[in-house]
Amino acid sequence: MKFNKELDSIKVYEAGKPIELVVREFGIAPEEVVKLASNENPLGTSPRVAATIRANADKAHLYPDDSMFELKEALSQRYDVLEETLIIGAGSDQVLEFVSRAKLHPGAKVLMSRVTFAMYEIYARQQGATILRTPDWRHRPEEFLAMMREHRPDVVYLCTPNNPTGDAMRREDLFAVLDGADPETLVVVDGAYMEYARAKDPDYAVDPREILEYPNALYLGTFSKAYGLGGMRVGYGIAQPGIIEALLKLRPPFNITTLSLAAAITACSDDEFLEKSLALHREQIGRYEAYARAHRFDYIESYTNFITWNFGGDLNSTDLAEALLERGVIVRDLASYGLNALRITVGTAAQNDRLFAAMDEILG
Amino acid sequence: MKFNKELDSIKVYEAGKPIELVVREFGIAPEEVVKLASNENPLGTSPRVAATIRANADKAHLYPDDSMFELKEALSQRYDVLEETLIIGAGSDQVLEFVSRAKLHPGAKVLMSRVTFAMYEIYARQQGATILRTPDWRHRPEEFLAMMREHRPDVVYLCTPNNPTGDAMRREDLFAVLDGADPETLVVVDGAYMEYARAKDPDYAVDPREILEYPNALYLGTFSKAYGLGGMRVGYGIAQPGIIEALLKLRPPFNITTLSLAAAITACSDDEFLEKSLALHREQIGRYEAYARAHRFDYIESYTNFITWNFGGDLNSTDLAEALLERGVIVRDLASYGLNALRITVGTAAQNDRLFAAMDEILG
Repeated sequence: MKFNKELDSIKVYEAGKPIELVVREFGIAPEEVVKLASNENPLGTSPRVAATIRANADKAHLYPDDSMFELKEALSQRYDVLEETLIIGAGSDQVLEFVSRAKLHPGAKVLMSRVTFAMYEIYARQQGATILRTPDWRHRPEEFLAMMREHRPDVVYLCTPNNPTGDAMRREDLFAVLDGADPETLVVVDGAYMEYARAKDPDYAVDPREILEYPNALYLGTFSKAYGLGGMRVGYGIAQPGIIEALLKLRPPFNITTLSLAAAITACSDDEFLEKSLALHREQIGRYEAYARAHRFDYIESYTNFITWNFGGDLNSTDLAEALLERGVIVRDLASYGLNALRITVGTAAQNDRLFAAMDEILG
Repeated sequence: MKFNKELDSIKVYEAGKPIELVVREFGIAPEEVVKLASNENPLGTSPRVAATIRANADKAHLYPDDSMFELKEALSQRYDVLEETLIIGAGSDQVLEFVSRAKLHPGAKVLMSRVTFAMYEIYARQQGATILRTPDWRHRPEEFLAMMREHRPDVVYLCTPNNPTGDAMRREDLFAVLDGADPETLVVVDGAYMEYARAKDPDYAVDPREILEYPNALYLGTFSKAYGLGGMRVGYGIAQPGIIEALLKLRPPFNITTLSLAAAITACSDDEFLEKSLALHREQIGRYEAYARAHRFDYIESYTNFITWNFGGDLNSTDLAEALLERGVIVRDLASYGLNALRITVGTAAQNDRLFAAMDEILG
């Protein structure tokens, strides 16, 4: 049977290995596996959110309020924006999918950094669009602006802080790209890790309201990282109403589960958990920087909840990831991104101890 | 800003009114509202599923196992099919979206019954495809076969039992359509309510394995109805591996939440709840048939968990739906489908009592 030709070039996405797979493949007890591969919140689920889920466990048969009235109200208050500037997705991922389907088609172009979030390319390929990448893995504004002038892309992705490298754009650089964009170019500012950037250095953070001033920009946020709801699939987009209306046409009804909606509403007012998450991260990330310095390899200055160790010629990231896996520690090898690097979620003190012990053993 | 032209003809989908909205609009206490509009399971959430959700409430920060190993294994055993014939969606809705995006494009054609599940058309419009409908609201095999010969559609939707009418195709009629389909036509057999048809009359039910024998057919099932997981968004498609591979290219990673995955795995072995759901339905639906007969209006013989009251000239479905709403009873008016009819979920004895009392009051 024939399918649309855009599918020909698409490979099925393989996500990071879940703990269950390591248990099955290496026979390691589940409680012994340390997963620092998916940037999940090492503090776990907020106790307030877990209580909300338990209290709503017997509502699994009921469809959610598809207007998402309460969640939109909570987000609208949190960011001081109007409700008609909001769209909720099953993770900010789904909003990315809406963007791709609303703007891209064969012949359309998207521009992104050489090394950035994998789904930008996957969703663009599904639409048959042409993918353009800047030469550097960093988000260099001059490279973006030059390629925007030359190619007039339909969509530009600015992932800041960037996954999987961890670096972020300076505010002035981000605004320079936004100011230089053609009015028909949709510039997506993916702030999935913005909470960590803001806590580290406000010069590298933006507020959704600042993005909302541009008629051709979309801000993306998520509950998956600092709010600890990775498994619940809730993210959001913030943009001027014309953009939101177009994206809403592609939103399937009930795209958030009943429990996800309840969890996200609770998370919106759970500042205590957010502060704790950021504090744990601040306390632990220095150990990764120190470990890299002590072992004379580079790391990328991180504005996220993970750190990227960028090795020179002596170490091979794929071998290291495999050796860590055998010791029950799951990290993300960035070889497929063209980097000899490992992306490691900064965990709890005990999880990080396990990683450093495994590294010591491997490096001998 | 310009968007893809396919979006021009799309209106934003409005789901049925949630209880919260009726509470807000009519000032009725939430516990007084009876919702018989969304075909949610009136028995509620299975106690075993609710226990699973509570036990996993503190795993909301963890991404689900994206291979869905355990759920696929459970479904594979339940239906005696190979795992490579399975795809999991956020509701069977999401599998419908994959079908549309894999097969449809401007110039492509889809064929469906005059009155059937609204999302077939919405997803087809998103792809810019041409929508063809049979003249009758019933799924008449001769109409489908004639239109298939004339138009050679890329996708045919057979919703059996059909939503929102409740009728179903006889097995021999369904197989006649499948046998007459062009090898390049994908025939989707949407069995969202199949458990109810099987319990009522096996002549109107098919097994996924029977659909799997066709190289150009896809069976859809869901946990939203008989299994009581409407709010958790889990459905599945079953087809030969070539079709599944194409659809998997469009599946976003982590399309099911961590709690939805756990809930669905539990539901797969929860035969006790399934039997209870079917028994309650069998016990209550006769009351709706008797009420219609007593008040001299038609109903459509139902193979689903709802019944459709099909009025003659004397009663107006829109007025009735509004009058019921004012009394705190939410049902689905089918005026927008071109029928002077109400679709009513068969509820618990107490819920149905409320509906009949409100109807008595309205009819005077």
